[in-house]
Amino acid sequence: MTYEELQSLDLEHIWHPCSQMKDYESFPPIIIERGEGVWLYDEQGKRYLDAVSSWWVNLFGHTNPRLSNALAEQAQKLEHVIFSNFTHKPAIYLAKKLVALTPEGLEKVFFADNGSSAIEVALKMSFQYRAQTGQPKKKRFLALTGAYHGETLGALSVGGVDLYNEVYAPLLLNVVRAQGPDCFRCPFEESPETCNASCTQYVEEQLKEHADTISAAIIEPLIQAAAGMKMYPPVYIKKLRALCDEYDVHFIADEVAVGFGRTGTLFACEQAGITPDFLCLSKGITGGYLPLSAVLTTNEVYNAFYDDYGTMKAFLHSHSYSGNPLAIRVAEEVLDIFEDEQVLVQLESKQKILKELAHEAFAHLPYVGEYRQTGFVGAIELVADKKTKAPFQSEERIGYQIYQRALEKGLLIRPLGNIIYFMPPYVISEDEMTWMVDTTKEVITQFFKERGK
Amino acid sequence: MTYEELQSLDLEHIWHPCSQMKDYESFPPIIIERGEGVWLYDEQGKRYLDAVSSWWVNLFGHTNPRLSNALAEQAQKLEHVIFSNFTHKPAIYLAKKLVALTPEGLEKVFFADNGSSAIEVALKMSFQYRAQTGQPKKKRFLALTGAYHGETLGALSVGGVDLYNEVYAPLLLNVVRAQGPDCFRCPFEESPETCNASCTQYVEEQLKEHADTISAAIIEPLIQAAAGMKMYPPVYIKKLRALCDEYDVHFIADEVAVGFGRTGTLFACEQAGITPDFLCLSKGITGGYLPLSAVLTTNEVYNAFYDDYGTMKAFLHSHSYSGNPLAIRVAEEVLDIFEDEQVLVQLESKQKILKELAHEAFAHLPYVGEYRQTGFVGAIELVADKKTKAPFQSEERIGYQIYQRALEKGLLIRPLGNIIYFMPPYVISEDEMTWMVDTTKEVITQFFKERGK
Ligand SMILES: Cc1ncc(COP(=O)(O)O)c(C=O)c1O
Ligand SMILES: Cc1ncc(COP(=O)(O)O)c(C=O)c1O
Repeated sequence: MTYEELQSLDLEHIWHPCSQMKDYESFPPIIIERGEGVWLYDEQGKRYLDAVSSWWVNLFGHTNPRLSNALAEQAQKLEHVIFSNFTHKPAIYLAKKLVALTPEGLEKVFFADNGSSAIEVALKMSFQYRAQTGQPKKKRFLALTGAYHGETLGALSVGGVDLYNEVYAPLLLNVVRAQGPDCFRCPFEESPETCNASCTQYVEEQLKEHADTISAAIIEPLIQAAAGMKMYPPVYIKKLRALCDEYDVHFIADEVAVGFGRTGTLFACEQAGITPDFLCLSKGITGGYLPLSAVLTTNEVYNAFYDDYGTMKAFLHSHSYSGNPLAIRVAEEVLDIFEDEQVLVQLESKQKILKELAHEAFAHLPYVGEYRQTGFVGAIELVADKKTKAPFQSEERIGYQIYQRALEKGLLIRPLGNIIYFMPPYVISEDEMTWMVDTTKEVITQFFKERGK
Repeated sequence: MTYEELQSLDLEHIWHPCSQMKDYESFPPIIIERGEGVWLYDEQGKRYLDAVSSWWVNLFGHTNPRLSNALAEQAQKLEHVIFSNFTHKPAIYLAKKLVALTPEGLEKVFFADNGSSAIEVALKMSFQYRAQTGQPKKKRFLALTGAYHGETLGALSVGGVDLYNEVYAPLLLNVVRAQGPDCFRCPFEESPETCNASCTQYVEEQLKEHADTISAAIIEPLIQAAAGMKMYPPVYIKKLRALCDEYDVHFIADEVAVGFGRTGTLFACEQAGITPDFLCLSKGITGGYLPLSAVLTTNEVYNAFYDDYGTMKAFLHSHSYSGNPLAIRVAEEVLDIFEDEQVLVQLESKQKILKELAHEAFAHLPYVGEYRQTGFVGAIELVADKKTKAPFQSEERIGYQIYQRALEKGLLIRPLGNIIYFMPPYVISEDEMTWMVDTTKEVITQFFKERGK
């Protein structure tokens, strides 16, 4: 079959995620044959630098030899076993390591299959905890504008990006919504350096009014990723933790996107020196290989479910593939790589290089509102007016057009609206970073030049 | 570390799914080291026959060589790639095969990560279809008592097993609930042979009253598995399809548990000769290796989302690992095995053998209400009184006690309340079936003998 025939066959049968399929008429799917390091190769031999780590999951490159070998070996030994009353060494070791590496006080690990399911687990655990500790009025959740926590109805309910959940409003939970941080357009006109997270007052207002009915507050620490890589400082998290304590509300940290080194520390919460009541992990947990998620929580929460069977206090959530040994073995190897290869140390210098390259390349371009970076996530916010920071209309699909042009040049920078971002695998080299930044600059510059005509 | 130390470490850090963790004090987790065929081997060398296919996922045995090799090879080539605007051959081939093998009229395949997510996708697609085709009043779902569709809030909402969802009631959708089939205690006193599915009238009553507000009806075709392997004949599905047509309601077939040969045909809906509007698949799709799910639907549904980007009609659901090449490559190999090894033909004779063995062993035992079987799923319903069919009180945990005794003998038959069932991997041999049935009989007989004292 020719490449074009394969593309037609794809479109005949596959409904792709997060896509208006009609767009594929003029922009048919790229058929990837193989991956290596930061590169994806299509069936015609053309290569693409995966600057978004395939939706933020890849850490150590495509077809990483250590991960592929660990997976292949595990498949010879034990591919899966029911995880109720049964267990296996990889799960025990991974749980032990996760507990050791995450903030102090998180002692128990509950496994699920994807990020959305992890969020559902945390929400349900918090809710059931209230029911079982004499606080049945605490039934609601507090979440931020701009939040993204996944697509199943519970996870979608706490999400605050209209694009994803507006149409489903009648199916969603009645969530207490607080205005989230917005450092680029700070309503208090603070700068990251002077910021004392005054905007947590929006959360406080809601807590003041509704805390007696709120079970948990959920946030994406340091970066609201899907909202357009909105970044905010650790002090926000610190203050939120204090507010949750004050108002007796659980703190759910959704580190699905930012966990495993993305923000420069292994977990984003570390930078605020706090322990959440629930920590949700996924994506990078398997280095971009397989769906797996984990929710870590405290013994206090665990103990509220621990009782004689007849009391019916158990947490009966499960997924068929809970505790899957294949995914877990890969996750264990991911943590070993972090240790053996001093990944966080290496990442520190790479972050600096990226920051310098990108600031130099983008800060002074017209239509670039700002270049911001947290850890190894860099974002270019394109604006219609640099002074007023007025955004482009979404109908213009500025980011999407730039994305298409970059693909022509072999660079994969799938945008979020008008935000172009870099979230590359940690194994990217300095040369590759330079090429990534240069190519992006070239494409943006050329795009606006032609548009100006 | 000794076996006991590993067990303690497990309990120190792992919160197991679907478990009252206090039970593990007297019944610590069994640590599995490896699997082969129908057998699981613990770290002490003791083996267990996996008669429940590790929560109904395994088809061709643990560490099946063809599946492990396919997985290892794919991991050398392409472990993952973002599935929006990108694709890969395994996905294209799997989608093509699924469309060819499922009931006629299902043309499009949407991938997700687990069974629960597949249900959420189907519910959201149906709901959004209504919004986009001028039927905004159709916002609710119809589901059956005894239904189980997963644990995320959307999937849990349509579930009808109180054990799983009662505590979460305030978080769940307001679902139209119809009494489901109950052949063992048929309210119409019909037998499977004479049955004309009179009990579909319960659904019809609800449709008559609420159809103008119902978007879709969801069922588990032929077997309500989690409810206790409740089995019912194809005529029920046929009549339900007709009712859905009459009342303009989508038909969602949740074949997460029964798909891929479990009921004797590749898909359960085949036996009723109908095409659902949505077909949800997971579990066996990867032969028990990895979490993956797929929702198949019609071009009619697809077309209601197909429009210019600006109309905002796209289905924006996604998961990070949507379209994961590793899981999909294994799924492709599963379908090849079905073909190459004539699995369904082999299964037919195995089904017969199991039926004969089990009827002979169980039908005449005291406390066995009935032995029933559909395809390669056999269930023993234990009752306190064989004549009145009065159930045992759930507090007695009869099934659980029998399960523990069977484990001592190396047989894994995790029960559903007082229902003991067999749902073994398809590769089980006649000798293994004989041993499985004999051991179960022995354990049940001995249990009731001692209990009688
Ligand atoms: C912060 C955050 N939470 C949750 C999710 C949902 O994870 P998944 O896509 O695996 O369901 C995502 C996915 O992008 C995410 O970015
Ligand atoms: C019929 C049915 N639907 C949905 C599910 C949910 O699938 P998962 O456990 O993969 O989320 C299950 C799981 O047991 C099931 O049996």
